Amino acid sequence: MFRESFQPAAGASLIVLEPRFIFAAVPAGRPIVTLLTDFGTRDYYVAAMKAVLVGECPEVRLIDITHHVPRHDILCASITLERAIDGFLPGTVHLAVVDPGVGSDRRILVVEINRQTVVCPDNGLITWAWRRIGGARAYELTWRPGQSSTTFHGRDIMAPAAGMLARGEPVEKLARPITDPILLDLAPSTGNGARVVHVDVFGNATTNMDHETAQRFSGKSFRVGNHRIGSLRRTYVDVAPGTPLALIGSSGLLEIAVRDGSAEDQLGLRVGDVVSVE
Amino acid sequence: MFRESFQPAAGASLIVLEPRFIFAAVPAGRPIVTLLTDFGTRDYYVAAMKAVLVGECPEVRLIDITHHVPRHDILCASITLERAIDGFLPGTVHLAVVDPGVGSDRRILVVEINRQTVVCPDNGLITWAWRRIGGARAYELTWRPGQSSTTFHGRDIMAPAAGMLARGEPVEKLARPITDPILLDLAPSTGNGARVVHVDVFGNATTNMDHETAQRFSGKSFRVGNHRIGSLRRTYVDVAPGTPLALIGSSGLLEIAVRDGSAEDQLGLRVGDVVSVE
Amino acid sequence: MFRESFQPAAGASLIVLEPRFIFAAVPAGRPIVTLLTDFGTRDYYVAAMKAVLVGECPEVRLIDITHHVPRHDILCASITLERAIDGFLPGTVHLAVVDPGVGSDRRILVVEINRQTVVCPDNGLITWAWRRIGGARAYELTWRPGQSSTTFHGRDIMAPAAGMLARGEPVEKLARPITDPILLDLAPSTGNGARVVHVDVFGNATTNMDHETAQRFSGKSFRVGNHRIGSLRRTYVDVAPGTPLALIGSSGLLEIAVRDGSAEDQLGLRVGDVVSVE
Repeated sequence: MFRESFQPAAGASLIVLEPRFIFAAVPAGRPIVTLLTDFGTRDYYVAAMKAVLVGECPEVRLIDITHHVPRHDILCASITLERAIDGFLPGTVHLAVVDPGVGSDRRILVVEINRQTVVCPDNGLITWAWRRIGGARAYELTWRPGQSSTTFHGRDIMAPAAGMLARGEPVEKLARPITDPILLDLAPSTGNGARVVHVDVFGNATTNMDHETAQRFSGKSFRVGNHRIGSLRRTYVDVAPGTPLALIGSSGLLEIAVRDGSAEDQLGLRVGDVVSVE
Repeated sequence: MFRESFQPAAGASLIVLEPRFIFAAVPAGRPIVTLLTDFGTRDYYVAAMKAVLVGECPEVRLIDITHHVPRHDILCASITLERAIDGFLPGTVHLAVVDPGVGSDRRILVVEINRQTVVCPDNGLITWAWRRIGGARAYELTWRPGQSSTTFHGRDIMAPAAGMLARGEPVEKLARPITDPILLDLAPSTGNGARVVHVDVFGNATTNMDHETAQRFSGKSFRVGNHRIGSLRRTYVDVAPGTPLALIGSSGLLEIAVRDGSAEDQLGLRVGDVVSVE
Repeated sequence: MFRESFQPAAGASLIVLEPRFIFAAVPAGRPIVTLLTDFGTRDYYVAAMKAVLVGECPEVRLIDITHHVPRHDILCASITLERAIDGFLPGTVHLAVVDPGVGSDRRILVVEINRQTVVCPDNGLITWAWRRIGGARAYELTWRPGQSSTTFHGRDIMAPAAGMLARGEPVEKLARPITDPILLDLAPSTGNGARVVHVDVFGNATTNMDHETAQRFSGKSFRVGNHRIGSLRRTYVDVAPGTPLALIGSSGLLEIAVRDGSAEDQLGLRVGDVVSVE
């Protein structure tokens, strides 16, 4: 189900919003599968999954989310996966493979969420979407191919499952309901403290504080380590070049940035750093 | 409108050409949108725009030009965008987002050119296509969504506009004609001097001198800084490995290269460097 | 023709398999062209080929294998191309352009193999697929465009040929049969010795020893240089983190890896290194 659109308070000086220009669901017969991995794009691994997806679902349309998640960084993948689930059409299938436990007996999940379907290892990858979007139902994938490698379940188990779901196989045929997917120690903050959950390639630091909470502190100043960031701004150009600022980023979360610069470099920000309100 | 195909002069020893294998326009009902950004591919930003495009135009086909334009490098993006407009089919929509001014009151352009449509910020990005291809008409995008972030107009304003144009909305419904798009100090050279306008990942340096002009100097020697490059060659294998040469590159412009090497590294070439004719 | 599916020996303790979830051939009217190059993704070169492909075959679906083959590394491209031919659907066309000899008189190949078609320069790129998959037929592309650059045959000759083949032009119309494609000094090993043929981005080293041969040595220990690797394991988690191991990788070949680490870094492995059996 869609999350309800954010309604800005009357007279609010901050305008924040969700990408909700959605026209329709994925057209019948033209399914979309997205791919999110830590495989990089130098080797054949991503294309190997695409070959299987096209084999299972010949009409599929493939959209890459990213293949440059840092290797085995489940937290980073979880933050990115939530963005995909937030943005894509009902009917989309997301194949997310960051899988350090491949070959072990870790489970594989199918999750129905936001009228979309996720296939991923049960290692916490679903955490941020599970907690931020909510309304999810989890299944353990019980389907297995006749044969599988022990090192590439993304290609041999998860991609065919995603392809079958994309072409319309019911989830109940491939998986059984469960109530205990593994969840990381990561949740939206609704109080005074926040933590950096993601640093993007430009050095902007996204926190786990949502915009409603951040706006409650709109008269206060934010602080990270020894750096006083000041109060919430509307956008980058509200401060001078090279100046740090706090703003609501495009994911609807409190973000610490530096105009025309990098908060990662200039403020030394890292995932896990605490952002406090003075 | 197409540029006329290049007709080599009778007896010309240099064969140069434009990619004109075009079979048809984009099939009705199967629109193409290309994407050109400086977002990189590590984060969710590119996929966020694709999610919106698929939402606005469910049958769209998406083709990446590049997402590795150096951050905020409008000149580099402008050179690359012209290549896309030169190569793609009539009916293609190009979404080009290199947007350091996001959140300010800079305009957003819709440009009709070469029977294709470009959506981009009004910051000079259209310059090279405007001057090299010509015949363009500019519009200011007046359409705005009900809500928009202040930091990601690529997703919230430009992608939905590109999607609407791709599905056939008339430009007049979304935009008003203007005559003064911002243009950079960048133009094709038809005289003695030229400048490096782009250095590719292999270290080949493209200049702003077109092939007709370069061929007028075919008996003369080219020079860059202290380096005498010699007269115009036909292709890389016309010189020994490691040797610099001047040739007409695949974009129909004078290029300074080093066979099996890098002109950037070996000659220290940078964007803006002057290439002269002796 | 498909290779026959691998049938594990009764009672085999190692389970290895090929990706054979294939549902159907490429749907009629929805051809697939894959792209494999050393062009990188920063410049316009890849998109230039895609523009031509869409022009020649407006319904084409484009899938990137990789554009990050190290520049001019034909061996690496050959290993990756075989993976693509192994994995994709009958009817797929593969456009593989690693072409240091562009502009010289090197031939351009069309190869029919595994019910798919490859277009590539005749420089050895087809070697690994030719020898590992077998059953291939080679042609020299005789079709040429009215005009062509001398520096970018990928766009001007090979991409239009791939597009024409994808839309159903018979190979005989564009090419003539040959029996002598250039093949590199690279072949599957079926004996005692093996060589590293590819090192992936994670530092896993793939050798040219196939799984049947490797399993014949299942009680023996593998050695690389001064490093004793031990006997064949099933998967990464069978050894402690940081420990080297030998296993059958997802391409069905003997692989030397380090659990949660890099065999390239830790063991100094490089392409060409000898793997022996003690």
